[in-house]
Amino acid sequence: MKTALSALGLRTAPPSISWLMQTALARPKLISLAAGFTDNATLPVELSRRLLNEILRSPKTGRPALQYGTTAGADNLRQLTATHLQKLDGGHDHAHLPEHVIITGGSQQLLYMTLEALCDEGDLVLVEDPTYFVFLSILQSRGIKARGVKLERDGLDLAHLEKVLERLKKSGELRRVKALYLVTYFQNPTGVTTSLAKKSATLKLLNKYERAAGHPLYLLEDAAYRELRFDHGEDVPTALTLPGARDRVIYAGTYSKPYSPGARVGFGILPEPLFTTVQRIKGNHDFGTANLLQQLLARALATGLYDQHVAKVRKNYARKARVMKLALAEHFPVGVEIWESGGGLYFWARLPKGISTGVKSKVFQAALKHDVLYVPGVLCYADDASRAKPDHEMRISFGSASAENIREGIKRLGAVLRKYVK
Amino acid sequence: MKTALSALGLRTAPPSISWLMQTALARPKLISLAAGFTDNATLPVELSRRLLNEILRSPKTGRPALQYGTTAGADNLRQLTATHLQKLDGGHDHAHLPEHVIITGGSQQLLYMTLEALCDEGDLVLVEDPTYFVFLSILQSRGIKARGVKLERDGLDLAHLEKVLERLKKSGELRRVKALYLVTYFQNPTGVTTSLAKKSATLKLLNKYERAAGHPLYLLEDAAYRELRFDHGEDVPTALTLPGARDRVIYAGTYSKPYSPGARVGFGILPEPLFTTVQRIKGNHDFGTANLLQQLLARALATGLYDQHVAKVRKNYARKARVMKLALAEHFPVGVEIWESGGGLYFWARLPKGISTGVKSKVFQAALKHDVLYVPGVLCYADDASRAKPDHEMRISFGSASAENIREGIKRLGAVLRKYVK
Repeated sequence: MKTALSALGLRTAPPSISWLMQTALARPKLISLAAGFTDNATLPVELSRRLLNEILRSPKTGRPALQYGTTAGADNLRQLTATHLQKLDGGHDHAHLPEHVIITGGSQQLLYMTLEALCDEGDLVLVEDPTYFVFLSILQSRGIKARGVKLERDGLDLAHLEKVLERLKKSGELRRVKALYLVTYFQNPTGVTTSLAKKSATLKLLNKYERAAGHPLYLLEDAAYRELRFDHGEDVPTALTLPGARDRVIYAGTYSKPYSPGARVGFGILPEPLFTTVQRIKGNHDFGTANLLQQLLARALATGLYDQHVAKVRKNYARKARVMKLALAEHFPVGVEIWESGGGLYFWARLPKGISTGVKSKVFQAALKHDVLYVPGVLCYADDASRAKPDHEMRISFGSASAENIREGIKRLGAVLRKYVK
Repeated sequence: MKTALSALGLRTAPPSISWLMQTALARPKLISLAAGFTDNATLPVELSRRLLNEILRSPKTGRPALQYGTTAGADNLRQLTATHLQKLDGGHDHAHLPEHVIITGGSQQLLYMTLEALCDEGDLVLVEDPTYFVFLSILQSRGIKARGVKLERDGLDLAHLEKVLERLKKSGELRRVKALYLVTYFQNPTGVTTSLAKKSATLKLLNKYERAAGHPLYLLEDAAYRELRFDHGEDVPTALTLPGARDRVIYAGTYSKPYSPGARVGFGILPEPLFTTVQRIKGNHDFGTANLLQQLLARALATGLYDQHVAKVRKNYARKARVMKLALAEHFPVGVEIWESGGGLYFWARLPKGISTGVKSKVFQAALKHDVLYVPGVLCYADDASRAKPDHEMRISFGSASAENIREGIKRLGAVLRKYVK
């Protein structure tokens, strides 16, 4: 008898790092610099207790929090989210409209529903090369093709983006392109932050090719790590602040990383007709994100305690990133290029070409033997026939490991690398 | 310029009752017997405050609750859920395995992901005629066809089910059938509970047609209202207790209705390969349901306070159902057939054929004029070319309205009906 599974069901693969996660769980001595978890130490345990107590102290605020809400999310949180983003964007409010905000189960759900709303099987989405690997999993499961655009230290290689668009136009594939996906702040996996100039040039380029595509080309900006900035640089405004953004920019944000992944609340800002479409899809998924979590975040934001908490979180990551930086300088061989980040959870290490870091490589196996784990860079590259997948890089995270484990983990990894990198 | 939306995006329609909901919100004097909300008065405000306090009192239990978990759900809640269902099913544990439990954002998300895993565009799902209208919305949005099977007071009309299967076999469409969807307890919208004998006969019939289908035919049992029993009848065991269930029964359950929709946690029990497939899809949707809510439910279950709470909830609905029953006897004309329910949130009223209750009907418009709202039965029927949609019925809910409003609402509705039903 054949399977009853759908094409989507059959295509949906195990998560690319599930094997890594299992390995980490099974070996208690192993130091994982692979996990993208936030730091346990700064989770807002006492703060959440206090806020939930306030919400549930009386039926007046408690009952609405425990009842169904509306599909797009609680009005107060949608308004607070719009205001929060306006503040981050220096008072800009041109595309930061509460009526275009949808509250979701993390930004992941927003990404998923946006792809449902936009893409048919066989459609194309442009991505950074490398990019967030779970986004690639969604594309793969839905039969959507990815095309990579080279990434530089300040965002996309614009000349390459134009070349890719031009080629797609010539091959007739531009009609299948629906969006360009960028992780614009402290990117997963490279730590790169996209400059506003590059966001602006990217939006203009997409616009230029719309006529040939025959439909809007959306810029999907994933700002999941935005609030985890810890250097003293200025916050880069979002693409929402650019002319034309109101019709073409989809913004995915989250309170998971800065506040709590266990009280998972994310959000999106979407132009029409996407907002309405994604709202309807959300109705079919779950009628709207759990109200209790929405009210927890709304209260944190409204009282200013959210901002206070995020300031603490940033300090903690700044400290741990510094620990990693020093350890890298001490233990990694000079032949390894390090991309440090001014925020987020990751550094990116590039070995000389030809030295593989993949799961079956000597480097990975030796690291495992020495009880240290990283994410092989190759997992973050789209299946794209137009180039071979680079496989000489690694994502190393200072997110969940303690300072002590970061030091020890980098020391172990350095010892391995000194054997293979001359 | 054309739209960039996908076929799914274009198909996804506004929720069929969104207009009803908006009307209710806009007219404060209006009594809604339409909403499927649970009763505000019995929401576990103080209980949730206490349990969350316990969880968040120390970093030891607080941090894991605020951190990421695993995609299938927290181990303790998966175990407690399996045990809870075993208990409800009289100690039966043959298909109630914790390793087959997945925790979801309400049972709605389980239904959505199950359809993603099973059905391609053009596939067929058999449904009760009438059935849960949001399930029909999901089917419609995903291009899945529904075929209705007549519903009797104790579940499916088995002769009709066989006739439908036989016809599909002859037309060659059986190859596209993937599942039969039943809302087995206090069904939405009719209040019908399916007997175990009918579940058993249904499973056997599906089995009989598998060879002709060429793949498994799943029984998708939606037990969302199961714990809202308030009559003194015995609980009917689930299809999970039947021989062969372990390979063919998908069970969708939820803690939303009995505990809190605002702390939305649902669950499913799925046979392989569906469990693994749905787990992967869940990874792409959201990595797993918010841990804080899972830990809230786990603690409620483990302490026995969940059961105590549900007992209170049942008493409240019993009282309100009694109020509705008495009001119906007093105010509705005898020509209206009432299907009372021993649980859940709904009664079902059937007017004589030929008297329409649809949104544009005289009855609905007169009801609206008298400030009372119900769900027109026609919204609960699948688009099925093999029969005309019955349009002479109404779902009336005693879930969220107060006893006083139930009395007054039924009085108003009765006055309207006495004009049209002789």
